[in-house]
Amino acid sequence: MAKSRPGSVDLEPVAANGVLNRRLFLEGAFAAGAAGLVSTAAEAAPLEVPAWTKSPGAPFAAYGQPSRFEKDVVRNWANPANPATFGIGTARTPNQFLQGIITPSGLHYDRSHAGTPDIDPDKHRVVIHGLVKQPLEFTVEALSRYPMESRIHFLECGGNSGALAGPTAAAGTVQTIHGLMSCAEWTGVRLSTLLDEAGVLPEAKWILAEGADGASVSRSIPLAKAMDDCLVCLYQNGERVRPSNGYPVRLLVPGYSGNINTKWLRRIKLVAGPVMTKDETSKYTILLPDGKAWQFVFPLEVKSVITSPSPGINLKGPGFYEISGLAWSGNGKITKVEVSADGGKSWGPAALQEPIHTKAFTRFRAPWNWDGGEVILQSRSTDDTGMVQPSRAQLVAERGTRGQYHWNGITSWKIDAKGEATNVFV
Amino acid sequence: MAKSRPGSVDLEPVAANGVLNRRLFLEGAFAAGAAGLVSTAAEAAPLEVPAWTKSPGAPFAAYGQPSRFEKDVVRNWANPANPATFGIGTARTPNQFLQGIITPSGLHYDRSHAGTPDIDPDKHRVVIHGLVKQPLEFTVEALSRYPMESRIHFLECGGNSGALAGPTAAAGTVQTIHGLMSCAEWTGVRLSTLLDEAGVLPEAKWILAEGADGASVSRSIPLAKAMDDCLVCLYQNGERVRPSNGYPVRLLVPGYSGNINTKWLRRIKLVAGPVMTKDETSKYTILLPDGKAWQFVFPLEVKSVITSPSPGINLKGPGFYEISGLAWSGNGKITKVEVSADGGKSWGPAALQEPIHTKAFTRFRAPWNWDGGEVILQSRSTDDTGMVQPSRAQLVAERGTRGQYHWNGITSWKIDAKGEATNVFV
Repeated sequence: MAKSRPGSVDLEPVAANGVLNRRLFLEGAFAAGAAGLVSTAAEAAPLEVPAWTKSPGAPFAAYGQPSRFEKDVVRNWANPANPATFGIGTARTPNQFLQGIITPSGLHYDRSHAGTPDIDPDKHRVVIHGLVKQPLEFTVEALSRYPMESRIHFLECGGNSGALAGPTAAAGTVQTIHGLMSCAEWTGVRLSTLLDEAGVLPEAKWILAEGADGASVSRSIPLAKAMDDCLVCLYQNGERVRPSNGYPVRLLVPGYSGNINTKWLRRIKLVAGPVMTKDETSKYTILLPDGKAWQFVFPLEVKSVITSPSPGINLKGPGFYEISGLAWSGNGKITKVEVSADGGKSWGPAALQEPIHTKAFTRFRAPWNWDGGEVILQSRSTDDTGMVQPSRAQLVAERGTRGQYHWNGITSWKIDAKGEATNVFV
Repeated sequence: MAKSRPGSVDLEPVAANGVLNRRLFLEGAFAAGAAGLVSTAAEAAPLEVPAWTKSPGAPFAAYGQPSRFEKDVVRNWANPANPATFGIGTARTPNQFLQGIITPSGLHYDRSHAGTPDIDPDKHRVVIHGLVKQPLEFTVEALSRYPMESRIHFLECGGNSGALAGPTAAAGTVQTIHGLMSCAEWTGVRLSTLLDEAGVLPEAKWILAEGADGASVSRSIPLAKAMDDCLVCLYQNGERVRPSNGYPVRLLVPGYSGNINTKWLRRIKLVAGPVMTKDETSKYTILLPDGKAWQFVFPLEVKSVITSPSPGINLKGPGFYEISGLAWSGNGKITKVEVSADGGKSWGPAALQEPIHTKAFTRFRAPWNWDGGEVILQSRSTDDTGMVQPSRAQLVAERGTRGQYHWNGITSWKIDAKGEATNVFV
């Protein structure tokens, strides 16, 4: 005795093709307006008692895991069939299946250049040396005694969404296109505390951060950033940092390209200028149409993506849906996200999940009534520096189609009449 | 060539026995004042290259896990040696090893009355019935289409810390004494949205919430709370709710005793008065000295505990330490936490992790210089309703020593001259 789904909702549209007013959420007007859209009238008969209510369940587990029915919500990578892969490449977060702003640590993306080292925390050391008054060495236990701070920050690989930089639209899902980004609560010691203790000499203007992995990934960071908001992290989402994210010590450089957030942090060297490591010359530079490249482009620019609906997260017939997605900026806080259902001709504001954190994912949501026709969904974010996420055309005009780093253009999902989403260029 | 650790820090104390001013954190004055406390001067020789830097690391994992060196950071329960235990009892969060405010879902506490059911989300249904205009039935997929909200909230078993209610001090750790509490980012549909859709009849004043586990755990909740801030949750820390926490659907009743936050939510029945289920009469009532009991005491009162130092998290000689802990209130936001190192005779304010969420863990931190003598550490929290965490003596005067639920008195850790912590009553 299923109720029929009305094809339309009697609520104020704020943009074409059924984008509704976010007041629907903010003022609790949803139920009154959209009642009966997806529920089913219950039978008068007594409820069926399912098998799992008739027997005892599973015993306790020392460390819990997701349901076996969620086995598809996992990280993926390019060559999963090759068990010999030493973790060189990228394992991507299934952001289309997630909600809120916290990425569970088991699904945090992993970009590694030589696999995940198996580091004994009792033997690991972090050294601060170079242009300092007194070089210092820290055990993990010593770091644990310093004052800590916790903050929610996103991490994004500089190459995330690079598939959209090319000349033709990318096949794939949010995970394969935008899976190199995650967000967690990080806890650690301010890098400035440790640098102050070592005593930075006046001629030091940059630092070099180096990891203890087999690739010794190394990046140069301006001293001003090092003294600002960087954290020497021991904890990720409450527990010790996961091995694939830098156990036992990760340098967090909020808002800067993921690769600068040195995993398995081994040393910080105070230097007079950038070191020109392999990881900042052979890659992670932005190639321009004239063959030159931008180097040391640090903060990730304002960006957003609709995670649902999206490829693989298909619609089941006309009616009410919530458009949900993520917005973030390496320069500060998200102040506005707009959504469009007509390929960018008209826009309506989305509701933003509070509180909004700086340099962190911000979940946005917009009520939407799909009439069953073909539409193109987009989101566009603005941050508190006033930067607005550019269209793909603007980005291509500036950079051409060869650069794959820091690609922050608007993503377009075409929804066809079957409710299936694909990436398109508009 | 280790530097010596000075036994004292030249910084303003704000309470006896070395409690320092939190400005040490807030104004970045730490390094200048406390430099050289726990670091070691580095050698001039080149850094040793550890084995894990000389070889490729581990390959990618679809779902990541903590380091093997963190194998002790797990949930525990009363009879771990008995593999036949059907998860009846409590598995506790190792809060003494955690930082920040997010509990990783694998370590979220688990209080179960009949183990964890293995629920197929495609077959699970949530029904709203009783005193409504139109009973409704929801599949998990239907619930997924409703507007969502994400909020960070704590959960605490009504029996948490009950070991401190007795006549003698409790042996044990933060985990065994205070392990029935955790905090996560929860995402779901407002219960009020679904109730509005069903149409609550005027004679309905309470709801009954029932789980689909073998014990059919059921609780009565006032309608006013149901219409206020309750969430029908599908997600916990970004991913689907874990099985031991209610997969696929958990009712979140922010600030109320954990057991009211119905796991494996199966139905909501609108009723005229409380139902007097076994779960609210045979237990979860507060026994008073005269043999009577309080029933339907819902919000968990303002509370805090120092997680480090604490039993098992011992000090390694005199010098600087950070006192770190958690504060929370089922009635609102934490506004103040004070710490004492002399058993409550003098108090100094701790720094609070921002932003402060309502009905959520708030991490507090206080700088402390331990002189190596015996001290008694305490924390005392205040919430935005003005409630102040009571001393144990106040609580015992009110309730006696037989009640084990809603025990929110001040916890005292005695630190002896060896730096070892134990629970004491003062």
